[in-house]
Amino acid sequence: MQIREGIVLGSEKPVLFAGPCAVESLDICLEIGSKVKAWAEEHGFSYVFKASFDKANRTSSGSFRSIGMDKSLEVLQKVGKELNVPLVTDIHESYQAAEVAEVVDVLQIPAFLCRQTDLLLAAGNTGKAVKIKRGQFMAPEDMQFAVKKVRSTGNENVCLTERGFSLGYHNLVVDMRGLPIMRQFAPVVFDITHSVQQPGGQGGSSGGQREFAPFLARAAAATGIDGFFIETHPEPAKALSDGPNLIPLHRMGDFLKMLKESWELGRKYQDFAVE
Amino acid sequence: MQIREGIVLGSEKPVLFAGPCAVESLDICLEIGSKVKAWAEEHGFSYVFKASFDKANRTSSGSFRSIGMDKSLEVLQKVGKELNVPLVTDIHESYQAAEVAEVVDVLQIPAFLCRQTDLLLAAGNTGKAVKIKRGQFMAPEDMQFAVKKVRSTGNENVCLTERGFSLGYHNLVVDMRGLPIMRQFAPVVFDITHSVQQPGGQGGSSGGQREFAPFLARAAAATGIDGFFIETHPEPAKALSDGPNLIPLHRMGDFLKMLKESWELGRKYQDFAVE
Amino acid sequence: MQIREGIVLGSEKPVLFAGPCAVESLDICLEIGSKVKAWAEEHGFSYVFKASFDKANRTSSGSFRSIGMDKSLEVLQKVGKELNVPLVTDIHESYQAAEVAEVVDVLQIPAFLCRQTDLLLAAGNTGKAVKIKRGQFMAPEDMQFAVKKVRSTGNENVCLTERGFSLGYHNLVVDMRGLPIMRQFAPVVFDITHSVQQPGGQGGSSGGQREFAPFLARAAAATGIDGFFIETHPEPAKALSDGPNLIPLHRMGDFLKMLKESWELGRKYQDFAVE
Amino acid sequence: MQIREGIVLGSEKPVLFAGPCAVESLDICLEIGSKVKAWAEEHGFSYVFKASFDKANRTSSGSFRSIGMDKSLEVLQKVGKELNVPLVTDIHESYQAAEVAEVVDVLQIPAFLCRQTDLLLAAGNTGKAVKIKRGQFMAPEDMQFAVKKVRSTGNENVCLTERGFSLGYHNLVVDMRGLPIMRQFAPVVFDITHSVQQPGGQGGSSGGQREFAPFLARAAAATGIDGFFIETHPEPAKALSDGPNLIPLHRMGDFLKMLKESWELGRKYQDFAVE
Repeated sequence: MQIREGIVLGSEKPVLFAGPCAVESLDICLEIGSKVKAWAEEHGFSYVFKASFDKANRTSSGSFRSIGMDKSLEVLQKVGKELNVPLVTDIHESYQAAEVAEVVDVLQIPAFLCRQTDLLLAAGNTGKAVKIKRGQFMAPEDMQFAVKKVRSTGNENVCLTERGFSLGYHNLVVDMRGLPIMRQFAPVVFDITHSVQQPGGQGGSSGGQREFAPFLARAAAATGIDGFFIETHPEPAKALSDGPNLIPLHRMGDFLKMLKESWELGRKYQDFAVE
Repeated sequence: MQIREGIVLGSEKPVLFAGPCAVESLDICLEIGSKVKAWAEEHGFSYVFKASFDKANRTSSGSFRSIGMDKSLEVLQKVGKELNVPLVTDIHESYQAAEVAEVVDVLQIPAFLCRQTDLLLAAGNTGKAVKIKRGQFMAPEDMQFAVKKVRSTGNENVCLTERGFSLGYHNLVVDMRGLPIMRQFAPVVFDITHSVQQPGGQGGSSGGQREFAPFLARAAAATGIDGFFIETHPEPAKALSDGPNLIPLHRMGDFLKMLKESWELGRKYQDFAVE
Repeated sequence: MQIREGIVLGSEKPVLFAGPCAVESLDICLEIGSKVKAWAEEHGFSYVFKASFDKANRTSSGSFRSIGMDKSLEVLQKVGKELNVPLVTDIHESYQAAEVAEVVDVLQIPAFLCRQTDLLLAAGNTGKAVKIKRGQFMAPEDMQFAVKKVRSTGNENVCLTERGFSLGYHNLVVDMRGLPIMRQFAPVVFDITHSVQQPGGQGGSSGGQREFAPFLARAAAATGIDGFFIETHPEPAKALSDGPNLIPLHRMGDFLKMLKESWELGRKYQDFAVE
Repeated sequence: MQIREGIVLGSEKPVLFAGPCAVESLDICLEIGSKVKAWAEEHGFSYVFKASFDKANRTSSGSFRSIGMDKSLEVLQKVGKELNVPLVTDIHESYQAAEVAEVVDVLQIPAFLCRQTDLLLAAGNTGKAVKIKRGQFMAPEDMQFAVKKVRSTGNENVCLTERGFSLGYHNLVVDMRGLPIMRQFAPVVFDITHSVQQPGGQGGSSGGQREFAPFLARAAAATGIDGFFIETHPEPAKALSDGPNLIPLHRMGDFLKMLKESWELGRKYQDFAVE
């Protein structure tokens, strides 16, 4: 999946999609983006800045959603220019695709929406790269149909993202078999921080288990995949969403070093077969 | 939840939402609607005609979606008038809410979309009754937040619908505990035919286990609930979607008789407690 | 499954297996057994007294296990004679089968052990009726192999029992489809109180949700089954095991009345098909 | 966990438990054991020969169980002496513990039996090392109680083994979070070949997905664990049990090389934390 000239998911270089969960402010986006960019370069990742312009499916309506779509997109655009990095953000309804595509390089389809045909087609029709998250209710092999919906628009720039499957209530499990299965259809990104989310596990908001992120990250990388997605914040406890599963910004450099080594192991053995 | 004057979900009379899966044609809608209406009256159900104007989340894009939104709504309107029955249909994006609300009495929020705040608010804002399906990934108690999102618009006419939880891949299970749990927040409808669906279980389309529908229907009714949702077709094998789980139209009369007796048992004992 | 002359699981009369979880003392067994026997007769159930002589798989070893196997069997025997009721109890290792079979009428195979070939064969070889609980990890259709193992001894007196499937950690779900599936192989009993257990959900012991027992009981009965299993205690909070899911003894009469009506509904419609 | 002098699970050197699923014959055990031993030494593993003397919980009773307990133990003993390797085998009932402990170095408790108190105590009382498999129905943190049961005998030589959790019917998922969770209580072994089993997935016997074994093996190793369990056979299609998930013997050398590198990555980062 080509993101920009020279930035390709599924190439010799892993891609890192990272940033705060939501566009909280220009300052915090620049702080996070500039630091992560430097670490990404140091450890050999292509970097794509991520932030959501709208948290459209919060557990309860009392939670923070957005500083406004227009203002968020403006911030994203400034971050992209100032840091010279590509951008990724989610869209939630088909009417948003064209407008958001003017600002970002990658349109992300949220997991709950991975079967919404109109949204997939609208994203595909923008010509921008499309990153689809696997629904928490979808068998890995069934994600091929989401990929095909995007490709039916003539847009081949599509990838899949793993973020856990429903294992009973308020809990997700990452089935590592899903990574090689989905990789048959498109390049695969592992979403490290949403995979340790506990949906609705704290009453009106979702909980998280940040402490398991390094374990799942190494495990997924070692299977052999193409990229990673991480949400980070200088002060997770003060983040406006997903605090319990964010990686503290000050740990991101070391995290990326570990991740790169794990990715190299996975890359070396990705085609190892036992037959 | 008041659907029309005198038609209340959560009253002395169970409500039946039933019809074909999709608006296939006016003729077939009238055939199904008129027969089901007669049986519903015979067995003591309030009847609401159901058909989707668009199948927006089919597994693969090669499947039938719609005869067109405008044409479908026109058909729905004619059915409603000709049979003098209220109507329910799904909406998938927030822009559809107002337009669809001009035609139908109940807006249904699909299971995958039960956390989409904008969609819930748009539905609530129409003032029409809103029927929310529980996501295949949502703990029953977390559905209270979806209800609250609708109620935050000032619209109290809202209900919840059970249709199965992800039990591994390609399989759904109905957790009967979820019915009394959700009933604490709003009246509850049991979706008999989608609860026996097998998501993506047949390659590019979903499978189904129609043979279990009578068992699950009796079980859910016996717990004590407010209404039922059934998709039916004169020739399930020829239906344009969900064929494997539809109830053959010729069995609907007997099915409703059985359902009513089961509902009466549930109603009698719905408050039975062991403490 | 013939339990004693005139007491047949899978006949015109439902069978109730009920009693305290463990053999705590003769007095408490007689108190529970005599009361339940009277209510069972009043409401039209055949009654089998149940109590475990050993809780062999408690979550932690600090929990109560037994007053001793010999003493427990002695108590069971006295209860059987004094109340003139058949008896059921669990066995855990094959060497126990013959000895226990001298005292009880039905040998119960615990859910965790439902695949242990030696245990099933030993139970079958006693000639006594064998009641196998479905493992929390077993697909309903795979229980046919457990039934076949018992039948391979020439013993046709075998039944299956539903008690929930693992739905993630610390939680069980009753898949009501499993009841008609298992009934193809043998008569089926629904274990009402273990189905609302929460395995290991309270640290070193299992929790329970007694409040859902009436809902699940009506639901399972309405599908159409052959018998019920209930653990009860005059003071659940003081019971030596499984307290959180026991039915208080003083509610058993009303519970059985409700259960019988539900069973009659299930029986009436057990063969209702939609094809 | 000390297995023999100088062979310690949870040390600087990973431990490999490997061999055929069942004791089929002395010749095949020697062929497998000698080859695996050489590769284990080459790649830096301590080696423990594994074979079951009895397959006590086969799906159906028509499947191969054993060449006889006595004969199997005799074969095991000869293999141990001839190859000078420690031995591990399963026990299924408490009476077997003492007899089997005379022959083997490690007693393995099968997953279905991980809550059977008598079996755990009998194993612990032999003084031999005890290897407990996590039940397919057990939350990882609840395995601490199984460990405590063994330790209550005064035997500290105990370890835990991961082999997948029930993800719906006929399917298992390895939750990689479970490995660091269980490691808080005891050293942890990853059972590579049973983790790709599909229980009962082929009618009267279990299926398997050997093709995923390398992916899960790298993933688990990368989290940071102590040992591995692998079943192998020169001709998996002819193996008397578990054929579909066995690793072909001729791939074991390369497999171990890959596994060692993965283990080293996990070891390097096992204490990496994000707080």
